[in-house]
Amino acid sequence: VTAAPAPKRAAVVTVGTEITTGLMVDTNTSEIALALEGAGVRVVEAVSVGDDRGALASALRRLAASCDLVVVTGGLGPTHDDVTRHGASEAFGLPLIRDPALVAGLAPSAARHTDPRAAEQVYSQADVLEGARVLPAVKGTAPGQVVRVGDCTVALLPGPPREMRPLLASLVREWGAGAAAPAVLRCAAVTESDVQVAAQDVLDGRDDVEFTVLASPGDVRVVLHDRGIGAAALAVLADAVAERLGPVCYSRDGSTLAETVLRLARERGETIATAESCTGGLAAAALTAVPGASAVFLGSAVTYSDESKTALLAVEPGLLARFGAVSEEVARAMAEGARAAFGATRAVAVTGIAGPDGGTSDKPVGTVWFALADADGSGAEMRLMPGDRELVRVRSAVVALDLLRRRLAGL
Amino acid sequence: VTAAPAPKRAAVVTVGTEITTGLMVDTNTSEIALALEGAGVRVVEAVSVGDDRGALASALRRLAASCDLVVVTGGLGPTHDDVTRHGASEAFGLPLIRDPALVAGLAPSAARHTDPRAAEQVYSQADVLEGARVLPAVKGTAPGQVVRVGDCTVALLPGPPREMRPLLASLVREWGAGAAAPAVLRCAAVTESDVQVAAQDVLDGRDDVEFTVLASPGDVRVVLHDRGIGAAALAVLADAVAERLGPVCYSRDGSTLAETVLRLARERGETIATAESCTGGLAAAALTAVPGASAVFLGSAVTYSDESKTALLAVEPGLLARFGAVSEEVARAMAEGARAAFGATRAVAVTGIAGPDGGTSDKPVGTVWFALADADGSGAEMRLMPGDRELVRVRSAVVALDLLRRRLAGL
Repeated sequence: VTAAPAPKRAAVVTVGTEITTGLMVDTNTSEIALALEGAGVRVVEAVSVGDDRGALASALRRLAASCDLVVVTGGLGPTHDDVTRHGASEAFGLPLIRDPALVAGLAPSAARHTDPRAAEQVYSQADVLEGARVLPAVKGTAPGQVVRVGDCTVALLPGPPREMRPLLASLVREWGAGAAAPAVLRCAAVTESDVQVAAQDVLDGRDDVEFTVLASPGDVRVVLHDRGIGAAALAVLADAVAERLGPVCYSRDGSTLAETVLRLARERGETIATAESCTGGLAAAALTAVPGASAVFLGSAVTYSDESKTALLAVEPGLLARFGAVSEEVARAMAEGARAAFGATRAVAVTGIAGPDGGTSDKPVGTVWFALADADGSGAEMRLMPGDRELVRVRSAVVALDLLRRRLAGL
Repeated sequence: VTAAPAPKRAAVVTVGTEITTGLMVDTNTSEIALALEGAGVRVVEAVSVGDDRGALASALRRLAASCDLVVVTGGLGPTHDDVTRHGASEAFGLPLIRDPALVAGLAPSAARHTDPRAAEQVYSQADVLEGARVLPAVKGTAPGQVVRVGDCTVALLPGPPREMRPLLASLVREWGAGAAAPAVLRCAAVTESDVQVAAQDVLDGRDDVEFTVLASPGDVRVVLHDRGIGAAALAVLADAVAERLGPVCYSRDGSTLAETVLRLARERGETIATAESCTGGLAAAALTAVPGASAVFLGSAVTYSDESKTALLAVEPGLLARFGAVSEEVARAMAEGARAAFGATRAVAVTGIAGPDGGTSDKPVGTVWFALADADGSGAEMRLMPGDRELVRVRSAVVALDLLRRRLAGL
């Protein structure tokens, strides 16, 4: 027996009015696409339709004609709005045949209902497309089915993720032709366009690898997809892109910036504290989101008033009066004060003007001072952060963690 | 001028290889569908395609022929994989014309790049479909556009939710012309089902108003949609639902919990500080996200280690040794210490076990103590928070702010 060649182009169809009305975010598509990517199958389109047999049938006909594989989830349960079996039957002209083995398996579920209509609805889950292979339910009661339609393989899977997952996993094992997992590089405090240009410099002209640049404020990811290059060569290329990106690239394994900072500190036997003004606790919240952060992160002083900078961080009132809260001098005093107050080996401080108010011609909105303190003293730098209050805050927290990361890594 | 009748059938198209490869869960579809529902428009199909101009063009042609409205998000940014403008151009045979006003607006962004290729990529965001109306960017740099294609209105919106949201809101106001704006009630620290039942009690049997319950961790919103009832009667009904919900309902105008806390404190001439252990700065970050927070919020001591609870909040080491960091005694000492250290009239403290490790049979993961301190002393209460580390942290921050809100409101 030889395995059939892996399908190359796939579509994912999710069925349910809870999706098209927005009441539920569809996470199945992402989960199925990731699993298919891992098997070397490319999702070219994902479609969601409501509990509408006609709309589903029309989508299935269209996609089965242009794809090697169509994975459908949802609408396989026992209720009136479960339209997937009938929609597929209509789309492909395949009658539904009640499977006796499935009927026997559903009998205990059906017996729980006194209303015969409810029992009949349970048994409707035993209706199988002519010629389809049954995928027995691992969780829940709804089985899946796989049927060949012309050149396309169509799989119908239940919608609840915990029921869908084991059936998907077994299918992916069958289809898996072994494309490499995508390589993910993460970068901090850099623009999307700069990352784009860097990746292009390395990857331009190749058709055996595809890349995607994903940006969120202050954080940019480059994802390299295997399109025939293979795992070993993909890893080499990912290293080349990382090299080209330089010190802005902080992880090659998908770790977040906070995870990277905590790992570096742990490896070096250091402890960390932060002093935050304009970021208001965002840097601390990012660090403490990581399980086990308490091993190296000691805490943060969120000092939003001048008085609290003095009370918690021993910033001299004279410095605040002379230079203002947003200044090199106060940033350094905050970092040194946090290091002392928390007894940490290393501290970072952020003080800036997030806006919308508080800017001056001297210190416009977006002016942010960052300082690092360690046993050897302290240093500071100013950045003018673009964007509104939210962006200034989020990006400033990223810069603070990134400065800590670079210092810990000796970059 | 009379408003055009609201479109009845809509499609949502999301563009991005990060979606079709599963690297990102698409939340825009849900958000857009909810907003369209609110305007009386029904989403009949949602489609995701990768960064593939041909696939997008073919989806757009098909959907524009069968829908009154097509909303596209994503692929409008400045990088090579931003294919939406060209995909729409190809689909509808509309040339792209570079808009001089947009070019001028993008100049500061372009000037940040030294590489001319990067600058040209920034300017590509100024390319507009012939005949399209520009929706200037409210956040970010990518503008949206709206164009009429036969009987269909096609809107292209940026993909990042914070950039998409304000443009969507203005479009939905146009399309929903005539219907009253939805009424939004927000509730804290309550289950979705309880809110559902309360809303049903008031609204059951009505066909002139429809409601949706939206839950995020610790926070539940009820949205009342005008289906013919009119603005005045909708407001009366919203008040009746708020009445039925009781003290869990903290806002009737869409204000967030943090905004409500800050408003109450300002009205009462009070100042606020927080002391956070397991929430790690999340409560402070929520408060400082609000512009003008510094008028009443003085700061937060994020004390992740025992020693820092003593150093910053003067928690007696004996209390920590005897009762442990997660205890009524330490929570109260933290609240009192924060009030003193920041010189605030009122402080809230949170100390708990967020997991995944650190739980015991006595104090399982999810055990969280909350304390409030004011001029009259302090009080504390324990809650067992369900969920994983992230949920325990987020929900605990909501509970802390909600306790502060209730105390400030005298509830």
